[in-house]
Amino acid sequence: MKKVDGGTVLSPAGYQSGGMHSGLRYRKKDFGLLMSDTPASVAAVYTQSHFQAPPLKVTQDSIGEEQKIQSVVINSAVANACTGQEGLDNAYKMRKMIAERFQIPENYVAVASTGVIGEQLPMDKITHGCENVELSYEGASDFQKAILTTDTCEKSTCYQVEIDGQIVTIGGAAKGSGMIHPNMATMLGFITTDATIDSQPLQKALSQSIDRSFNQITVDGETSTNDMVLTLANGQVNHQPLDEHHPDWEAFQFTLQLVCEDLAKQIARDGEGATKLIEVNVTGADTNEDARIIAKKVVGSSLVKTAVYGQDANWGRIVGAIGHSDAKVDPNGCDIYIADQLVFSGGTPCQFSEEQATEDMCNEKVVIEIHLHEGEGKGTAWGCDLTYDYVKINASYRT
Amino acid sequence: MKKVDGGTVLSPAGYQSGGMHSGLRYRKKDFGLLMSDTPASVAAVYTQSHFQAPPLKVTQDSIGEEQKIQSVVINSAVANACTGQEGLDNAYKMRKMIAERFQIPENYVAVASTGVIGEQLPMDKITHGCENVELSYEGASDFQKAILTTDTCEKSTCYQVEIDGQIVTIGGAAKGSGMIHPNMATMLGFITTDATIDSQPLQKALSQSIDRSFNQITVDGETSTNDMVLTLANGQVNHQPLDEHHPDWEAFQFTLQLVCEDLAKQIARDGEGATKLIEVNVTGADTNEDARIIAKKVVGSSLVKTAVYGQDANWGRIVGAIGHSDAKVDPNGCDIYIADQLVFSGGTPCQFSEEQATEDMCNEKVVIEIHLHEGEGKGTAWGCDLTYDYVKINASYRT
Repeated sequence: MKKVDGGTVLSPAGYQSGGMHSGLRYRKKDFGLLMSDTPASVAAVYTQSHFQAPPLKVTQDSIGEEQKIQSVVINSAVANACTGQEGLDNAYKMRKMIAERFQIPENYVAVASTGVIGEQLPMDKITHGCENVELSYEGASDFQKAILTTDTCEKSTCYQVEIDGQIVTIGGAAKGSGMIHPNMATMLGFITTDATIDSQPLQKALSQSIDRSFNQITVDGETSTNDMVLTLANGQVNHQPLDEHHPDWEAFQFTLQLVCEDLAKQIARDGEGATKLIEVNVTGADTNEDARIIAKKVVGSSLVKTAVYGQDANWGRIVGAIGHSDAKVDPNGCDIYIADQLVFSGGTPCQFSEEQATEDMCNEKVVIEIHLHEGEGKGTAWGCDLTYDYVKINASYRT
Repeated sequence: MKKVDGGTVLSPAGYQSGGMHSGLRYRKKDFGLLMSDTPASVAAVYTQSHFQAPPLKVTQDSIGEEQKIQSVVINSAVANACTGQEGLDNAYKMRKMIAERFQIPENYVAVASTGVIGEQLPMDKITHGCENVELSYEGASDFQKAILTTDTCEKSTCYQVEIDGQIVTIGGAAKGSGMIHPNMATMLGFITTDATIDSQPLQKALSQSIDRSFNQITVDGETSTNDMVLTLANGQVNHQPLDEHHPDWEAFQFTLQLVCEDLAKQIARDGEGATKLIEVNVTGADTNEDARIIAKKVVGSSLVKTAVYGQDANWGRIVGAIGHSDAKVDPNGCDIYIADQLVFSGGTPCQFSEEQATEDMCNEKVVIEIHLHEGEGKGTAWGCDLTYDYVKINASYRT
């Protein structure tokens, strides 16, 4: 498998996208559409929040019908969350307008929204978007821009992998944790591939990938009402359908995971007010699950995050975060490295160069390694530093 | 039961304390001693961290012997955590010095430390403290000061309750989450009473109280290597020994809980960089456990904490925090009040006065009420706002 530089959701065969300004935001693009030439197998993962937003309900309804979709319509600025029956009706209207305009069944359309919660969608602007958004096989940038809120940059990636000797492409676009009135950190991911695969194995591959990517990032420990990752596979590359018995299954699954991981890292790096990406690698845990728990605990610790912001090789805070996880940990058998220097071993701190550590922690990516010597389990998590700007962004009024 | 204004750990009969400057800190008091006239029943709760510090191990060893102790020796500045065998030996030496000087069995001495982790105790200064700390029946302030690190104020409380027609007093002192090089937010609580009660029922009363007080506060979600709450009962008031069958058991348990709750709130309010105490009350949950989980989730949310700092009646963030708890929640059956105004009901936001809310949120205490309409469960949690100063305090170098 290999990464395709500059690749996007449009790199796999048979996909078009579009993005425009429908008037929901002041100037920026706020309305996007993704379209496969043919109905595609689909896999999806939704927010665990009890307050799941109407667009997610409509998307689940669509997918539930035939486990196939062809199109995803997205608006930013207004999340259509906590909007009751009117919000649900509006999400269905979005679905219907796209279906009618492009003459596809309604249940082939998924709906996503991101932005302020508790406000109804201004349906005149949504209608304008549904009627006017233009599709193109080239240039996913309009689409990638339209799904952002206060993200500081577009997020996209693309990988290729050989299946039955043919090149299969997997592309992705995402929006991250820009904070918005009145403030949820919504994560949306849209992944496209031209692989031939049924929805059931695709769901399996996606779920496995999510556990090692999107579920392993944390900006501030919050979960939004609108989080969703959708994967479409339109079968434009003609190979033996992929499932667990296919000899290239693992290669496909791993490539999908790389796509998810790459998007997840871009989201973590672009966390609110963030100046650095933090990567925590845990090895030698009792289980992979234990490793992932610890990695996420460390990367999510406010004290670790502020220490990284302050370029402080503060092993004590890492010990603190490891210490209060439920995972199996022998306090005397745990080695901690910050940016390649061993800082803690055998239950006590080590001699290390603070100067070197401070220098290493000026980098845009800071890696913390934890070896537990309990077993074979390993896991990684990504996050960002906690800065003055995080407080600034989030303490300001909504109005 | 009633609160005793100005009451302390010395208000119950038969307790002395002392505090002094032993040289561990530059100028401030750093060495404290608490002493009961007679051996006392004891109950204790320790940090859940895997990296439990040596003083906690020594204390557990002492208590394990006869379930009685008479004295607690405490130093601040150096936590004696992550210090290996040498640290353990040093904690035993502290115990021994106090036992020999006051001619009590070693296992009647508990040890506590708070401060920087990964550094060995400077035993010359500790010895100086053990040999010179002076006890007095009056004025707990020296003791209360000696246990602080970067707390901005002393924390003490006292309540009285009638048992068998006699006045029993329960006093408490605590240190909170002042951040220290290299940074753990250690919580220490010392509670004294003149009640007559065996260690086993005392432990039961304490554990129940802790679940509704110390375990329900959060400053930044961290747990220290040195957290400990100790309760001593020296039986100076002669009543029928308290246990669950005693008619005044509930009154005693509830009074102990009030002492714990009062100390816990003082700790939360004095969280690093905090400007406000946040109290979250959850009622109508399926179970008390569910209520406590949700209350703690909301009060611990970085987004809620920054919103409170910004005096922003941001119901969306509260919905977000409730939404991603594991508790049973009907998104359409949940009412949210901020400072007495209903801001969210029936799955959608309510009309409310933003102006009034902003004014109410200028107060030093901000109350959030959540009614779930699922059952009879209720619970409360306390925390503080997240401010620029939190980042400032925690991003600065250790050195």
